[in-house]
Amino acid sequence: MAPIKFEIEKEIPGQMGRAGKIETPHGVIETPTFVAVGTKASVKALTPEQILETGAQVVLANTYHLYLEPGDERVKNFGGLHKFMNWQGPMMTDSGGFQVFSLGAAYGKELSKITKITDPSQLLVERSLDGEAPRLARVGQDGVSFRSHHDGSLHYITPEKSIEIQHNLGADIIFAFDECTSPSEGYRYQEEALERTHRWAQRSLDYHKSKPNAEFQALFGIVQGGREESLRRRSAEFIGSLDFDGFGIGGSFAKEDMETAVKWVNEILPKDKPRHLLGIGEPEDLFMGVENGVDLFDCVAPTRNGRGGTLYTSRGKINIKNAEYREDQGPVDEECECSVCKNYSRAYLCHLYRAHEMLGGTLGSIHNLYFIINLVKNMRRAILENRFPQFKNEFLAKYRKE
Amino acid sequence: MAPIKFEIEKEIPGQMGRAGKIETPHGVIETPTFVAVGTKASVKALTPEQILETGAQVVLANTYHLYLEPGDERVKNFGGLHKFMNWQGPMMTDSGGFQVFSLGAAYGKELSKITKITDPSQLLVERSLDGEAPRLARVGQDGVSFRSHHDGSLHYITPEKSIEIQHNLGADIIFAFDECTSPSEGYRYQEEALERTHRWAQRSLDYHKSKPNAEFQALFGIVQGGREESLRRRSAEFIGSLDFDGFGIGGSFAKEDMETAVKWVNEILPKDKPRHLLGIGEPEDLFMGVENGVDLFDCVAPTRNGRGGTLYTSRGKINIKNAEYREDQGPVDEECECSVCKNYSRAYLCHLYRAHEMLGGTLGSIHNLYFIINLVKNMRRAILENRFPQFKNEFLAKYRKE
Repeated sequence: MAPIKFEIEKEIPGQMGRAGKIETPHGVIETPTFVAVGTKASVKALTPEQILETGAQVVLANTYHLYLEPGDERVKNFGGLHKFMNWQGPMMTDSGGFQVFSLGAAYGKELSKITKITDPSQLLVERSLDGEAPRLARVGQDGVSFRSHHDGSLHYITPEKSIEIQHNLGADIIFAFDECTSPSEGYRYQEEALERTHRWAQRSLDYHKSKPNAEFQALFGIVQGGREESLRRRSAEFIGSLDFDGFGIGGSFAKEDMETAVKWVNEILPKDKPRHLLGIGEPEDLFMGVENGVDLFDCVAPTRNGRGGTLYTSRGKINIKNAEYREDQGPVDEECECSVCKNYSRAYLCHLYRAHEMLGGTLGSIHNLYFIINLVKNMRRAILENRFPQFKNEFLAKYRKE
Repeated sequence: MAPIKFEIEKEIPGQMGRAGKIETPHGVIETPTFVAVGTKASVKALTPEQILETGAQVVLANTYHLYLEPGDERVKNFGGLHKFMNWQGPMMTDSGGFQVFSLGAAYGKELSKITKITDPSQLLVERSLDGEAPRLARVGQDGVSFRSHHDGSLHYITPEKSIEIQHNLGADIIFAFDECTSPSEGYRYQEEALERTHRWAQRSLDYHKSKPNAEFQALFGIVQGGREESLRRRSAEFIGSLDFDGFGIGGSFAKEDMETAVKWVNEILPKDKPRHLLGIGEPEDLFMGVENGVDLFDCVAPTRNGRGGTLYTSRGKINIKNAEYREDQGPVDEECECSVCKNYSRAYLCHLYRAHEMLGGTLGSIHNLYFIINLVKNMRRAILENRFPQFKNEFLAKYRKE
């Protein structure tokens, strides 16, 4: 029996978008939806009760980080990620590919100029950009050797190893090991890397299917191919032809390339399996993804922005630390129904951030996650009620005005 | 009508300790109890829902900090502290005296060697200890002028001003403005300071009684006198003779002086009004205070320790970051009923702290506050059930063993 079951409830007429649901061993995910990122087995600054309060249905943890600390075998001994972090709902783990490469092979290739890099580990790369620092990762045919960004210890990850780690972590949905290239790489390297990713996808799948975990953990393949139409289509054809339970769309996107890449890919991927656009979470991009057939999104932006004081509102983002909010007795967003907007003023949040109180980051993260998750939930409702284009126009008209 | 009503339910036979309750405009406080400290209108790292989860009945905020930021008039415009921070239960504010002096007059007098200084602002003093930095505060007959530790701006606080600020903040229980001396000061200075504190107590009281706030805010006088028996008794006599609604026992205590000072004072203070031992919160000290007639305690230790990874257990404190806990699947404390001990392993907490996840500080603070609040709650129960001495012996025998 398949570990997950995906069902489409309704489509956007004339477009690829759809509302559906994914049944997992830890409950149903109504799609499209935004997945909360819990990098190191913790959605930063939030308890599981607070994660639920944001409306999150799924939490995605990072294989790379957990492999290094506390170690996947330790997590396995504790009964898996769900039990370890006390999250009873559906969970995902990524393959570790993005982190390995953003900390390694892509190093020195102007990765910092790319707008869509959203992983925190990226900062570590930027920090050591001057001089002739050696690459932290080395790509071979069988896998990637890399040094831990913690202690410099040497590690080697193959597709089989990535799946083994993810089996130990025990999420409901896991990802095939892939190479995430920088858009600044040339065609030749993109093609080379894509061929590796395809071989690794097959190996990830073979290893996964040989284990009993395949009965209760779903494996998603990842489509790569950078900004090249031919490579993206080739990747969607190949990955889409394999017996994966769903698909991820990967890559470090330049903003202007994202929509075309998602379209090329989703025109080809089998319609009856869920699709996850990896690492994307700004409102405009979520609309673009949903109308082009994406079912799942994840991104650290809502929580990272929340900790920093950049808060989403229906009229655009605001920096709550600004002096103008010191006297503002209104909620962060008048149209928001989250517990933060119901119980606190902008002035109180402004005070918390200015006073460096941790509670600011917690409340800001709750609000931002609620805002983004609720936005995608409203897109789902609009699809079900046949008014997605109107909803999109109305939301963006107001959101972009300020 | 008096803003609060205190009632003694039961006493410890042959000792000064008692169980009682205080009715306030925002609800009943069952005593003895430990008050959660919410320095800048936030119990650090906790939402009000999480504060409630710890069993806290009362939150104490700091006048000095809130006066400087966001400003007491701003808080008043928002409808007072309760509404500002979304805490519906009883609240207290201190007089600001401790902070003014720990940041100012006591400066340069080896304050850092005193074991019982527990206010975070103290660190700011230590940080500038080298060199010839000028005092930040200057004590006069009418009040204290001091420079903000934020921006160096000059401020002047009189007893009237302290009460006015506390009226603006709007807590249920407020404190008279006092001078908190360092135990390293000689007798002569202690006596001088005590006389000032007494004059300021009278002036605080007079100002308070002249305002309508006296109907819904209770004012506690503060007994000072350092380690000197004659001064402590003189202070208890004088402060106890005034028409306060309750009393604080202040001072920066050396551990060995605390018990005698509390005894001297509580033998004299009127029995029928509540007594608050300011800034004290370690288990041994709480037992000492309760059996000597203290009804209320506050201290930043549980939350500060919680953020740092030092966690209370029934077998003593542990540093959860230690490598020995990485594999430990047990709860922080097997006898603790808090949500952290019910839902998380020592290993998960160890991981959170080592990974610098904010959630570690949140969970550690919830546990520590629950532990300390529940300990005092159990003391109350033991008094009501006539078994306080047994409870004390059993608890401390186990607590001190490790």
